[in-house]
Amino acid sequence: MNVPTFADVSRARERIQPHIHRTPVLTSRYIDGLVGGEVFFKCENFQRAGAFKVRGACNAVFSLNDQAAANGVATHSSGNHALSLTYAAMRRGISSTVVMPRTAPQAKKDAVKDYGGKVLECEPSTAAREAMLKKLVEETGSDFVHPYNDPRVIAGQATCSLELIEEIGLIDAVIAPIGGGGMISGTCLTLAEKLPGAKIYAAEPSNADDAYRSLKAGRIIEDDAPQTVADGLKVSLRGRTWHFVSRFVDDILLVSESEIVEAMRLVWQRMKIVIEPSSAVAVAALIRNRDLFAGKKVGVILTGGNVDLDKLPWLKQ
Amino acid sequence: MNVPTFADVSRARERIQPHIHRTPVLTSRYIDGLVGGEVFFKCENFQRAGAFKVRGACNAVFSLNDQAAANGVATHSSGNHALSLTYAAMRRGISSTVVMPRTAPQAKKDAVKDYGGKVLECEPSTAAREAMLKKLVEETGSDFVHPYNDPRVIAGQATCSLELIEEIGLIDAVIAPIGGGGMISGTCLTLAEKLPGAKIYAAEPSNADDAYRSLKAGRIIEDDAPQTVADGLKVSLRGRTWHFVSRFVDDILLVSESEIVEAMRLVWQRMKIVIEPSSAVAVAALIRNRDLFAGKKVGVILTGGNVDLDKLPWLKQ
Repeated sequence: MNVPTFADVSRARERIQPHIHRTPVLTSRYIDGLVGGEVFFKCENFQRAGAFKVRGACNAVFSLNDQAAANGVATHSSGNHALSLTYAAMRRGISSTVVMPRTAPQAKKDAVKDYGGKVLECEPSTAAREAMLKKLVEETGSDFVHPYNDPRVIAGQATCSLELIEEIGLIDAVIAPIGGGGMISGTCLTLAEKLPGAKIYAAEPSNADDAYRSLKAGRIIEDDAPQTVADGLKVSLRGRTWHFVSRFVDDILLVSESEIVEAMRLVWQRMKIVIEPSSAVAVAALIRNRDLFAGKKVGVILTGGNVDLDKLPWLKQ
Repeated sequence: MNVPTFADVSRARERIQPHIHRTPVLTSRYIDGLVGGEVFFKCENFQRAGAFKVRGACNAVFSLNDQAAANGVATHSSGNHALSLTYAAMRRGISSTVVMPRTAPQAKKDAVKDYGGKVLECEPSTAAREAMLKKLVEETGSDFVHPYNDPRVIAGQATCSLELIEEIGLIDAVIAPIGGGGMISGTCLTLAEKLPGAKIYAAEPSNADDAYRSLKAGRIIEDDAPQTVADGLKVSLRGRTWHFVSRFVDDILLVSESEIVEAMRLVWQRMKIVIEPSSAVAVAALIRNRDLFAGKKVGVILTGGNVDLDKLPWLKQ
């Protein structure tokens, strides 16, 4: 199993720089007061396509040689990775195809099409999705870019914390949400090289605590269709992300659904920025564990800002 | 009638600098594409107390001599000026009292109290409000800081466009919302000195078009209890703001309620920032009048971000 090294991160950074934003790092006196520490929010909600996923997607797409690129790229996702891969393919001028369950929201299908991507609809099951993707890759020779279990993707995500520590300098800890583990693996990759003394915390919904249980058990445990408002975090670890999580993550901090929603609302209200529930998981973990972070310099990755503004989780439908 | 000069703006800037944020200027490729020009958003939604009003309030409070300051400050407002004046008084360590209709939302009263301000409740009429404020000022010697018809307030608001043009350089036009006219008067004051060739557009809800009708008539026309989602823009011009509006504003651009709500939602969705309806009035005017702004460099003042997240105007209640 090939896992990326820090040299891959340096190359990723050069490669993706023309295609992504260097996102701002924001602070909030209110949240600093709440935690009793200094908190630095890396705002990937302002990233192209609205989430950090565009880093990994661009790194994968722009590291293909011309011959491979000519066959296009493909993935399965109904979330930010779908949009990000399509964006990256558009930037390179190659085709992209996304396998999505036919039950996915029309808005997500439309967003992929707006960037020039193709949507292939499958039955909403893992087996159906994988079968359709396999067939597609065999027939077209498209390069399959997995949402997180791909060394190019992990190296791309690692550029996020690299920017953060370049801007802030020494920090004591970083908190990032964990789903499949792409962002947290990238964070491990960068911090192990640049700030090996910093603590790395993954934040996870209690309702989708497969990574937490995996870390305690010492092996990957998969969740079966977890229910959480943080819909970007429902997937499970895979080999390459487990590699990093098992070696470098200091702890996984669990938060409840109501803590996620409250943290999301707090950030909107106080910081005047739009973040999605998955981002709020990291903020909720920060607030719930303030004893861990008091007196410390803490980086928090706000992973994305793609929200359905017609369905806010604090409002009754 | 004393009106401020640009020298007052320079002094205001020095005076308030320790107490306010220098807010960022953001851009959006999407909105640039929509308009066909280059648009620079001055983000006062990130300002202390959530709105530009803190500039004028701080300038008023910190220009008092110690003897006058000892008697505290007072105003009538149930909006951003109330919070801003209370914040400014807290920074100086003096008392502040806000006369508010008893029907004002409890959240607004609580916010003033959180900053250490006193709330005096009156019957919801102009006469009752003015009588109570007059009595208060007579009894306590408090300095009355009008929300906009005050030279110190106008000079404070003028620092906003000063920061904008320092950061962006030459611009062809500025759009700011107009209610009582404090922000637009400050904008006139700065641009007349620094960029006399730039166009100045005020943006106003059609449902509260008193400034528009005033400009056409050549005299102040007051609205009687207008109904608009942009609740910061319901008040009418007064002598000092009319002075600037009548001399320097090139045009007043009207927008409908649905245009305001759509523009607000668009900014949240695309720029991932929280703006209040009054801010969205300027964005709606930009989009509606794109022919006016195509090929131009345009500054848009996003005046504030204080929104009731439980009552978003695009959602049915």
